Amino acid sequence: MTFIRNDWYVAAWPNEVTEKPLARRLGNQPVVLYRDRSGRAVALHDRCPHRGAPLSLGEVTDSGLQCNYHGLTFGADGTCVIIPGQDRISAKNCIKSYPLVEKQGFIWIWLGDPAKADASTIVDYPYHDDAKTWPRKCGMMHVKGHYMLMVDNLMDLTHIGYMHKNTIGSGPADEYVKAIMKPERTPRGAKFSRWLLDHTPPATYVAAGGFKGKVDRWQEFEHVAPGNVLMYTGGKDAGTGAYDRNDREGGIQLRIFHALTPETDTSCFYFFSTMTGYRQEDPKTCEQYHDAILRTFVEDVEFIEGQQARLSEFPSPQIDTIHDTVRVWVRRHHEARLAEEARNMENAAASEASSLARA
Amino acid sequence: MTFIRNDWYVAAWPNEVTEKPLARRLGNQPVVLYRDRSGRAVALHDRCPHRGAPLSLGEVTDSGLQCNYHGLTFGADGTCVIIPGQDRISAKNCIKSYPLVEKQGFIWIWLGDPAKADASTIVDYPYHDDAKTWPRKCGMMHVKGHYMLMVDNLMDLTHIGYMHKNTIGSGPADEYVKAIMKPERTPRGAKFSRWLLDHTPPATYVAAGGFKGKVDRWQEFEHVAPGNVLMYTGGKDAGTGAYDRNDREGGIQLRIFHALTPETDTSCFYFFSTMTGYRQEDPKTCEQYHDAILRTFVEDVEFIEGQQARLSEFPSPQIDTIHDTVRVWVRRHHEARLAEEARNMENAAASEASSLARA
Amino acid sequence: MTFIRNDWYVAAWPNEVTEKPLARRLGNQPVVLYRDRSGRAVALHDRCPHRGAPLSLGEVTDSGLQCNYHGLTFGADGTCVIIPGQDRISAKNCIKSYPLVEKQGFIWIWLGDPAKADASTIVDYPYHDDAKTWPRKCGMMHVKGHYMLMVDNLMDLTHIGYMHKNTIGSGPADEYVKAIMKPERTPRGAKFSRWLLDHTPPATYVAAGGFKGKVDRWQEFEHVAPGNVLMYTGGKDAGTGAYDRNDREGGIQLRIFHALTPETDTSCFYFFSTMTGYRQEDPKTCEQYHDAILRTFVEDVEFIEGQQARLSEFPSPQIDTIHDTVRVWVRRHHEARLAEEARNMENAAASEASSLARA
Ligand code: FES
Ligand code: FES
Ligand code: FES
Repeated sequence: MTFIRNDWYVAAWPNEVTEKPLARRLGNQPVVLYRDRSGRAVALHDRCPHRGAPLSLGEVTDSGLQCNYHGLTFGADGTCVIIPGQDRISAKNCIKSYPLVEKQGFIWIWLGDPAKADASTIVDYPYHDDAKTWPRKCGMMHVKGHYMLMVDNLMDLTHIGYMHKNTIGSGPADEYVKAIMKPERTPRGAKFSRWLLDHTPPATYVAAGGFKGKVDRWQEFEHVAPGNVLMYTGGKDAGTGAYDRNDREGGIQLRIFHALTPETDTSCFYFFSTMTGYRQEDPKTCEQYHDAILRTFVEDVEFIEGQQARLSEFPSPQIDTIHDTVRVWVRRHHEARLAEEARNMENAAASEASSLARA
Repeated sequence: MTFIRNDWYVAAWPNEVTEKPLARRLGNQPVVLYRDRSGRAVALHDRCPHRGAPLSLGEVTDSGLQCNYHGLTFGADGTCVIIPGQDRISAKNCIKSYPLVEKQGFIWIWLGDPAKADASTIVDYPYHDDAKTWPRKCGMMHVKGHYMLMVDNLMDLTHIGYMHKNTIGSGPADEYVKAIMKPERTPRGAKFSRWLLDHTPPATYVAAGGFKGKVDRWQEFEHVAPGNVLMYTGGKDAGTGAYDRNDREGGIQLRIFHALTPETDTSCFYFFSTMTGYRQEDPKTCEQYHDAILRTFVEDVEFIEGQQARLSEFPSPQIDTIHDTVRVWVRRHHEARLAEEARNMENAAASEASSLARA
Repeated sequence: MTFIRNDWYVAAWPNEVTEKPLARRLGNQPVVLYRDRSGRAVALHDRCPHRGAPLSLGEVTDSGLQCNYHGLTFGADGTCVIIPGQDRISAKNCIKSYPLVEKQGFIWIWLGDPAKADASTIVDYPYHDDAKTWPRKCGMMHVKGHYMLMVDNLMDLTHIGYMHKNTIGSGPADEYVKAIMKPERTPRGAKFSRWLLDHTPPATYVAAGGFKGKVDRWQEFEHVAPGNVLMYTGGKDAGTGAYDRNDREGGIQLRIFHALTPETDTSCFYFFSTMTGYRQEDPKTCEQYHDAILRTFVEDVEFIEGQQARLSEFPSPQIDTIHDTVRVWVRRHHEARLAEEARNMENAAASEASSLARA
């Protein structure tokens, strides 16, 4: 398995990208991320075309990113703008610049054919622009596992009672079984909503929402290929309209944006932004929720890394169970995209070969 | 070089295997060792057939070993007994279970064809069941070297004066030269006995046995393929019948069971049980001997790891000297076993091919 | 890229080689370096022909280097001189001995065909024998980069204003531009001299030489293939004959011998000897200069290691700029030598094949 190239991935959180260049391997390529003097975030191939030094050891100047070996300097589009002591600069000195979009608190990179990069397809996430309603805390973990193993994990709630039974998975098991599950395929992946009606709220919910009795609780997950999982959960006093009238006012609401970005074929970056839509006036609210959920992410990562180690050695068999519906949809979508990219590359190669034959 | 598959190896000491699963690579396979609720030691392939998570991250339940990713549970024979939320469980969900025998203070695993596993061929070691005469202390070291390099090392005493000259190899060199050496091939390897008659006892012997003068000293080693070396040494007042009448009563006696188990092609586990057959009433007797001998094992391991590094890069030449008789026997036996296994696999493949041709 | 085999490389500084054997990988071979009882430095293949143990785990005896596994002992020429308990020693027990020359404070090794080793071709460096004029301090760094990347770096001064701008590269940039550069090809590599006339001396120079005004400053570098770079720098009061009459008396003078020795295809040892030809009576003079220059070596190594990582993954393209003249000469010389060695090996193989055909 490899990764989808023609799409947007989160490359970094905005505060990670500064005038001090940052080296990060993305989609199996060495990339250098930095801000130029205008504050614009830029991603270049992290290899100087002169003698191959990493540009991430260089520095930002007024002219662009300067290689600190012999001073060649590159603009945001990868053009070589300075060769010390030399007036003529050949076009072959330019390097690959990756389409990069900073939007709604994310820095998105396009790892495939730049001609196909269309910023309008980037997932819309207006909540990041509404810090008053949705205070947030962002984090990142490096995971020694393929990004789709993390997506599999997120698009499945059955693992919670096992892997997370000492953290978020505790509680009255029979009530979880009664959950109403509504899975759905989407043009860009799959989603599901899961409702626990008349449900005993977990301790964290009671602490957060001050519930006196039972609640109606929702868990909505959406995968937007390749690496995004939008999660929206919360609860409200039972029978007060959350489920039947979609009226969630007065309850507690949580959003997490999970973004998985391939580093290599067997590792990824896991970016997450946690947002607490309650008691927004207290800065500790979000902080505490973030720290609590982080412990479950650590549990996830331990399993994903173990799983990757086994799958690297023994890729098959993998057997589906009754709970794998959404995961299977997600994977089929992913494989269809991979197959499409492979086909397009073949077509491109064939059409190039036929032009050569005509020439 | 690889390893003999159809035989028993020590997988662990009994106290290493508990309800908390233990991951150990044995014979190049990821194995999970645990005790089920009945106390029975079990070895399964450490890979869940669902999505490949390591079962060693799971836990023992009343039903068996539960994968802590999505809850699939396996019995001691590898059968899948639970798939959460699903009644029908297909036979293809089962995993490999390794024949495992707990006996006389060892846990033995069979890494080859389970149909050939015959527990009656396991080395008999009754001394482990006689803690009164033979108090013991067990240990284990991980060695970055093929298990046969450790067997070579144990079936040779000439290295003692060199590698161990600062530990057990000191003493009057000329008396060592006079040793009576009786090597012998056996159906399952080789053995030798070595007698030092009218010999100045080393300090450790004097301390242990309170000898006033010279002793007759024996060193008996037996290799039982593939990975076992039984060592029996001791000494007694010179000329009191140890050598000529095999009467060893009244002397000091020591036994070490060395068990070498392949982890990978270039690493192994070195299990050892040291037993002191004297001053058994003092618990420090065995403890002290174990700690003293451990220092020589550390010296052995340093050389074996260096040797493995060189042999991985330059496997040949290897030249035999006059002292290599027993080592050569041991290796020939090992190679004959390997060749036999390779032949059997070919025959099996051929007969399968011919049944297919007939079908 | 690989390395030139038929030439001399610095193997170690003399004080590194003692009766305690030293393991060092040189030219992709495991080598053991030691001094025999006569004080002679010896280099042998670090692998016992008996069972492959590293000889570097052995010890020096009166007879030579003893393998501490089973006692085989080897003379300085690689002949096996002792096999314990055995009178006849076959010639096939001998191991490779590398031509080694200790001279002028270097230990030089020949990694290629011993028949071609000619000690008269070793670089002459009489300054090492004149400690009164040239006090020295020697050092060594392990570099995860091909040795020629370090040679490239040393034979180029344009990187100083970028890579070393926080250490030795500061100063009035316009004066550096006015430098007179005289590059030259040589039979064994290339050299250049660079003169900064009527130049503001850097702070270190003022401290060292007590200059009151401007100086004439020289920087002479010579590459002697494969791995040596001789560096001679200094300064003297402007217009007092250093440039036009080659009269450097009364100024300050510095010499560094840089020696790069291949360890593997992507790593090397960087030996350097720094010598201060001024205020020789104060032992701190040399010490302080060495420590100051060491900081720039650390900067070099960071870049060379980054460059190696990129070139291992993406060897091309590499594009030349106007400043690459000397580097290109150095590389062409190196490639011609490599090509010549490859040709000679083919010829040798062909002539061996034709003798066999005739026989
Ligand atoms: S390697 Fe970047 S400028 Fe030379
Ligand atoms: S991977 Fe084991 S139950 Fe899913
Ligand atoms: S391996 Fe060196 S003497 Fe045996």
